[in-house]
Amino acid sequence: MRAAVMYGAGDIRIEHRPDPVIQQPTDAVVRTVLSCVCGSDLWPYASMPPAGTGRLMGHEFLGVVEETGPEVTGVRAGDLVVAPFTYCDSTCDYCARGLTFSCRNGGRYGTGGVDGGQGEAVRVPQADGTLVRLPVDAGSALLPSLLTLSDVMGTGHHGAVTAGVGPGDTVLVIGDGAVGLCAVLAAGRLGAERIVLMGRHTDRTDLGRAFGATDVIAERGEEGVARVRDLTGGDGVGKVIEAVGTRAALETAIAAADDGGTISRLGIPQYEEGPVGPSTVLRNITLTGGASPARSYIPELLPDVLDGTIDPGRVLDGTFTLDQVPDAYRAMADRRVLKALITF
Amino acid sequence: MRAAVMYGAGDIRIEHRPDPVIQQPTDAVVRTVLSCVCGSDLWPYASMPPAGTGRLMGHEFLGVVEETGPEVTGVRAGDLVVAPFTYCDSTCDYCARGLTFSCRNGGRYGTGGVDGGQGEAVRVPQADGTLVRLPVDAGSALLPSLLTLSDVMGTGHHGAVTAGVGPGDTVLVIGDGAVGLCAVLAAGRLGAERIVLMGRHTDRTDLGRAFGATDVIAERGEEGVARVRDLTGGDGVGKVIEAVGTRAALETAIAAADDGGTISRLGIPQYEEGPVGPSTVLRNITLTGGASPARSYIPELLPDVLDGTIDPGRVLDGTFTLDQVPDAYRAMADRRVLKALITF
Repeated sequence: MRAAVMYGAGDIRIEHRPDPVIQQPTDAVVRTVLSCVCGSDLWPYASMPPAGTGRLMGHEFLGVVEETGPEVTGVRAGDLVVAPFTYCDSTCDYCARGLTFSCRNGGRYGTGGVDGGQGEAVRVPQADGTLVRLPVDAGSALLPSLLTLSDVMGTGHHGAVTAGVGPGDTVLVIGDGAVGLCAVLAAGRLGAERIVLMGRHTDRTDLGRAFGATDVIAERGEEGVARVRDLTGGDGVGKVIEAVGTRAALETAIAAADDGGTISRLGIPQYEEGPVGPSTVLRNITLTGGASPARSYIPELLPDVLDGTIDPGRVLDGTFTLDQVPDAYRAMADRRVLKALITF
Repeated sequence: MRAAVMYGAGDIRIEHRPDPVIQQPTDAVVRTVLSCVCGSDLWPYASMPPAGTGRLMGHEFLGVVEETGPEVTGVRAGDLVVAPFTYCDSTCDYCARGLTFSCRNGGRYGTGGVDGGQGEAVRVPQADGTLVRLPVDAGSALLPSLLTLSDVMGTGHHGAVTAGVGPGDTVLVIGDGAVGLCAVLAAGRLGAERIVLMGRHTDRTDLGRAFGATDVIAERGEEGVARVRDLTGGDGVGKVIEAVGTRAALETAIAAADDGGTISRLGIPQYEEGPVGPSTVLRNITLTGGASPARSYIPELLPDVLDGTIDPGRVLDGTFTLDQVPDAYRAMADRRVLKALITF
């Protein structure tokens, strides 16, 4: 089969790799139908030192089960399934607590002998715990939205859930990337009345408005914080979703939060140290969020995608074939494309 | 009247100051019966640069109302009252949300023309919102425990509440100061089954055991974290109360927390930057807590002090007169006394 492999910053190649086969009785092999490029893939694309051994890319995919191990009972050959961005058994104590990212038998795609999601097929460990059957056929127009359940929609939802968003709330979403936009959608779905989106890319913030953002702020830093406060009564916002991952975005989140406010972080921090000194304690600021247990959220979100209540697939605004994956990365890095869909 | 004034590190003096008088119609003047020295008073005692103008000290006190402004209706002359460590109106939107520390009309003792709590009398602004009548007489043996409602007991309780402590929980409390010990008491009161206390001072950790700690760990740093993990099944603890305020204590809290865990910070951070990088996000660690809304908690905690369910006054293990306040600070700084009670 062919798969996308990264050898260093800006260096993505499509290579021939061995076809995946069942290795464990709990494995399934999934033939990829749709995949995509994650915002987090852009970090190594920008900074990975050149490496002799490539890194298999991709962790968001949807496909058709080709083969299953003898212990797999929940899915079978021919099923159309979506995979969350890490695999998990869905039975351990972490999974039971809704922390599938921390699953005791879980792990990531593209490492440890597991294929990446940006390839023609993937061996999925813990198939019963990981894969979710989709009650549509492989030609359904809903497929892009269903694909977002693997990561971005579940991640945006995690932000809204951990920030405690509920009916009537005012919510600030920092970042107009795919996760930020899905956080807008998730906040609205949970009943937020006012959703302020901070982002500078009009095409993206326009989609944010379509997803439910009531206000858009293009300014950043102190000026952006002042705008947030102006728009929301002066005290800041009680529920903030930080969907960028930079130090500057965290500083904005803290400055824009009201006393007693909750900041949910979704972006993987590009910093090791954050400004969590006396003022955050004196202001009772809570820092929460994290890596989404995307698998846990699929049962809740799937019906809303199927009936069209939410259409998160709109974040996938550029379509590429596997051979075009290097272009897909470049287009996302250059911000010509918000999130690249890969078709097989 | 006489009051304690700090002029620099190690330099506390007892001085004559003008007797407080009613300035606002919402003021009360309280004649102090008991006060105490806070762990947070020790930070300036260790580091305050020499100053020509002294700083009025103290923010925990209990006393008898001497006079009230014309708009005060909730307390009257002769009432025995306890004051939370900041004053507040108890009616603004922050107070209504249980954030009395952020009260729109609130403030701190010892600044802005308001007396400190380590003096013979205090003008208390927003008396109706601040002061709580105590249904005991001034000779009651419960007074030291009632005094702790002004700060340490309410602060320990805030840690347990914001960490989400409930029946059957395992809780880690870092720090054997008065706040840490009150957090032990609060965690037990909320039903925690296992309470691991990290502290090195046997007399304090013994009191911690009396307050409900089931395990005591004297080791610090990596060794201490390893002991926590050994004692609690290997994964770390889901609910951590950090009652020290140093960077090292925060690092211990993060390392000892289980994935998905909550760390409640009670100590005022002695750092500006904290280690809140990728691992805290990938592990879904929540950082919460903050300055306790002590006033909000008094109605809940008071009955338990009155009926002897909790006896937080035991943290007050040294008694000093106002003239002896310099000795009280020295004794606490030298760790000869856990928390100094000041009698009038």
